[in-house]
Amino acid sequence: MRNDVLDIAKRRGFFWQAFEIYGGLGGFYDYGPLGTALKENIIAAWRKHFVIKEGLAEIDSPNLTPREVFEASGHLDEFADFLTKCTRCGAVFRVDELTGATPGDVESARTMLREGGAKCSECGGELSDPVEFNLMFRTYAGAGMEREVYLRPETAQGIFVNFLNYYRYFREKLPFGVAQVGKGFRNEISPRKGLLRQREFNMAEIEVFLDPDEKVWGDFRDVEDEVLTLLTRGGEEHTLTAREALERGIVCAEPLLYFMARTKRFLVDLGIDEEKIRFRQHPEEELAHYSSDCWDCEVRISYGWIEVVGIADRTAFDLSRHMEHSGVDLRAFRRYSAPVKRKVRKIVPNMKTLGPMFRNRAAEVAAALERADPSSVDPSGRIAVKVENELIVVPPEGFTVEEMEEEVTGERIVPHVIEPSFGIDRILYALMEHAYYTRPDSGYRVLRFRPSIAPIKAAVLPLMAKDGLDNVAMEIHTLLRNAGIRCYYDDSGSIGRRYARADEIGVPFAVTVDYQTLEDGTVTVRERDSTEQVRVRKEELPAILKGLVEETLCFGDVKGV
Amino acid sequence: MRNDVLDIAKRRGFFWQAFEIYGGLGGFYDYGPLGTALKENIIAAWRKHFVIKEGLAEIDSPNLTPREVFEASGHLDEFADFLTKCTRCGAVFRVDELTGATPGDVESARTMLREGGAKCSECGGELSDPVEFNLMFRTYAGAGMEREVYLRPETAQGIFVNFLNYYRYFREKLPFGVAQVGKGFRNEISPRKGLLRQREFNMAEIEVFLDPDEKVWGDFRDVEDEVLTLLTRGGEEHTLTAREALERGIVCAEPLLYFMARTKRFLVDLGIDEEKIRFRQHPEEELAHYSSDCWDCEVRISYGWIEVVGIADRTAFDLSRHMEHSGVDLRAFRRYSAPVKRKVRKIVPNMKTLGPMFRNRAAEVAAALERADPSSVDPSGRIAVKVENELIVVPPEGFTVEEMEEEVTGERIVPHVIEPSFGIDRILYALMEHAYYTRPDSGYRVLRFRPSIAPIKAAVLPLMAKDGLDNVAMEIHTLLRNAGIRCYYDDSGSIGRRYARADEIGVPFAVTVDYQTLEDGTVTVRERDSTEQVRVRKEELPAILKGLVEETLCFGDVKGV
Repeated sequence: MRNDVLDIAKRRGFFWQAFEIYGGLGGFYDYGPLGTALKENIIAAWRKHFVIKEGLAEIDSPNLTPREVFEASGHLDEFADFLTKCTRCGAVFRVDELTGATPGDVESARTMLREGGAKCSECGGELSDPVEFNLMFRTYAGAGMEREVYLRPETAQGIFVNFLNYYRYFREKLPFGVAQVGKGFRNEISPRKGLLRQREFNMAEIEVFLDPDEKVWGDFRDVEDEVLTLLTRGGEEHTLTAREALERGIVCAEPLLYFMARTKRFLVDLGIDEEKIRFRQHPEEELAHYSSDCWDCEVRISYGWIEVVGIADRTAFDLSRHMEHSGVDLRAFRRYSAPVKRKVRKIVPNMKTLGPMFRNRAAEVAAALERADPSSVDPSGRIAVKVENELIVVPPEGFTVEEMEEEVTGERIVPHVIEPSFGIDRILYALMEHAYYTRPDSGYRVLRFRPSIAPIKAAVLPLMAKDGLDNVAMEIHTLLRNAGIRCYYDDSGSIGRRYARADEIGVPFAVTVDYQTLEDGTVTVRERDSTEQVRVRKEELPAILKGLVEETLCFGDVKGV
Repeated sequence: MRNDVLDIAKRRGFFWQAFEIYGGLGGFYDYGPLGTALKENIIAAWRKHFVIKEGLAEIDSPNLTPREVFEASGHLDEFADFLTKCTRCGAVFRVDELTGATPGDVESARTMLREGGAKCSECGGELSDPVEFNLMFRTYAGAGMEREVYLRPETAQGIFVNFLNYYRYFREKLPFGVAQVGKGFRNEISPRKGLLRQREFNMAEIEVFLDPDEKVWGDFRDVEDEVLTLLTRGGEEHTLTAREALERGIVCAEPLLYFMARTKRFLVDLGIDEEKIRFRQHPEEELAHYSSDCWDCEVRISYGWIEVVGIADRTAFDLSRHMEHSGVDLRAFRRYSAPVKRKVRKIVPNMKTLGPMFRNRAAEVAAALERADPSSVDPSGRIAVKVENELIVVPPEGFTVEEMEEEVTGERIVPHVIEPSFGIDRILYALMEHAYYTRPDSGYRVLRFRPSIAPIKAAVLPLMAKDGLDNVAMEIHTLLRNAGIRCYYDDSGSIGRRYARADEIGVPFAVTVDYQTLEDGTVTVRERDSTEQVRVRKEELPAILKGLVEETLCFGDVKGV
């Protein structure tokens, strides 16, 4: 089955290894015309399901990102694999793939490698000591190559570094969510399994910013009946509703669970087989350096269970790190339901003495004193304040420390982040496997894409390429195209062969122009899976197909003439 | 005016310099929520106008591209600027910007610099000898960094290297067109003018493959009445119809002109001011290394006339170079209208003598002889053929050379390429400037985006945030969102202030819930530019707004209750 899907993918134009005429480049794929349209349709469905319905702000940040960002995010230190090289044939391996476990540092990688007695799987040679290998692609920007930049391994950091802009966009209120669809880049040591582990890939990420004391998002009632299969860190498997999972505490954070349920619905609506979806909680050692809990949404395909979505609780990790590294305050303001009165000690400048003491700088010194912390007053009663980078010592007669009552309306907090992160290429490939079947009678191959997702919506076929049938079909083809419907014209081979060709790439509707068309202006519309046909007036075709493709109309509801 | 647009861009969330909390990174911008939606809407319009209507195949190839591709395309040698550095302050300049002319090589760059007597514009210091600086970002793929890869400076090469796949996709018939929307990367020496010269940018490119003897595309009658302003290489300016430009030979290649006219229509339909569009032919010295003729579509904005689209004749340059470098035959087959009979000389192996001579390799030698060119027979009557990389000399008795008649059905040709290449960021920025105006009465700022292009389609506003008006407005907001309409809810400030806030980001329709809504279930819909209002039933709102946004319905046609 996998070979059939890959054969269709290559031969018909879904995807193939990139740069084939130059021997290919491992881990890089091209999407052909059908793959590109399929990917765009998946992204459009994702936008509708998440961006619009959840009211997210979708943004677009650069792929090239300066070193400072990944220093802060921890990717420069942590985003690495351990690899070993065969000392005889030079083949390179990941230690975790050879040993089946993830080492924490070089030392443990070496121990695991030696204790396991691993050899080169290509030639049986001895393996070198492991080294740490950062997975980010590095390059330099500027004429003097003065800025070290990296291709982002995830789109998330482009959101975190702009937190303040998005906080303002949402009128400084939590919670809010920001989304990004774009490329990610990882210099994988062993790219493989086609689209599943690429060095350049398509992702769609959501970062939801929440008050840590009030981690809620969306209306849980919308998802409470969704049935989920959950594999906990402890090894238990549960199949239950989202409501039950919440009440039994199987998933701790409500927004994690909310997005798990929404994710399942998204995948099922796309066409992924409901029976082949599960959520697996990461064991502690598998958690990324930034995350406190993470559930992978896995889909079963010919390669086994593969992760297609990761839903992680990144806590305050990223924002805290960027605050620390940039020196910019990335906190949100938590407003108390009612202002709180609080006793505070404050420094009050004494202008009478400051005036003669500091002359034209007195006002600046006074302002600095007002900002200063009373606990900085030294035992002798003096305080040092900074005025335009100069340290000025103010004697006790320059100020008084007074206790006063202050009204506090809220406090500044670092938001927590819940991140659902979607691997678009993996979803696309899984969808192709799940959509694939062969007709019991003929053995012909079919891709069962639903109309809104199918890359091409209609084939326009003259019964014969003569007697004017071809001209009428061409006209209809132009008519549909101008109505924005992706379609093609095909007059080569028998009509059965042309139906089969359309079925193989998942075209949901075939429009056939026959001799009756010349008489009464009607054409047949054939539905791919049922192979049922209905005869309609050709003038009504654009509206009918538009309805079918946008799924406001079912094929069964199309009235024939 | 530019400052107003940039202020809205930054403050309201269209775009801003990226990585600001780390001091920014020159030449990189973020699109915020409004900019991203605007960009996506422009791309969607582009897809409809070009990909669907022209029947193009849209594909998606990787950003990272191996060195071999750019060796072949000439970008490694040619895609460079000449730069000079101030010997005193270290500022870097492009020679062409200092001298106003484009040098062809380092020598002429030096001459131009010295003869012009250029000094550092920052400090007046002496400038260094110019050096050539390649504009591509380089990095390495693979655990051993074994592959040198570059971020593509254009999306086109990802199409050329896959020519054979697309040729097959189009059933081996010319002409056909392939499109790609994606990022391009150029390590510009002096990025500036905001979105106009970035180091990472969005492009949409079309490569049309044509038979060089039959350079036609589309139906010229569809565009013949389009009026174009043309600035020829010779310095003349013409304003005439596409038909006249063709007949007077002002633009030589018909498909170039076809796409120029289609491009103008696209820009005008987007909202670019028709009076501020012109096409400028590249002078010889400005032509890229791969192109034989090129017309820039320029749009007049506050920065002057800027190029937003380039429409070039790349001839057979790229395919020929990739053929040469990859050794793969990238030619198309041109079928003759009728087969042609031709006398040919062929080598006919003599199996009787080859058998004893070459034993078990005789069949392979015979096959090699059949493929060999009779003109390779040397004066002594012997011929050398390659069998599995070994050169084998066959004596005269091993074969005969015979003259025979052969039927030839066609010939192999290297297609020519016409390339319309769109700078999406520049189009977006120009559109913002052209959409901007202030209301004569109030001075309030408005962005006049048409409904299909506007990033946000509707604002839902309760007249007051009390008496249940807010709840009804919230319900309507959810209703619209679930119908896939991008909208927001706003209850803060006076209604006039909220209209102004919506106008400033180009929201075309504002839905207001007032006290009458509570009585009869109707709401008002206000159109942005006319500020006219119409009262409709709230149940009908999703359908009405959908029609307005998809532009199947005009505001003037909405019937009030």
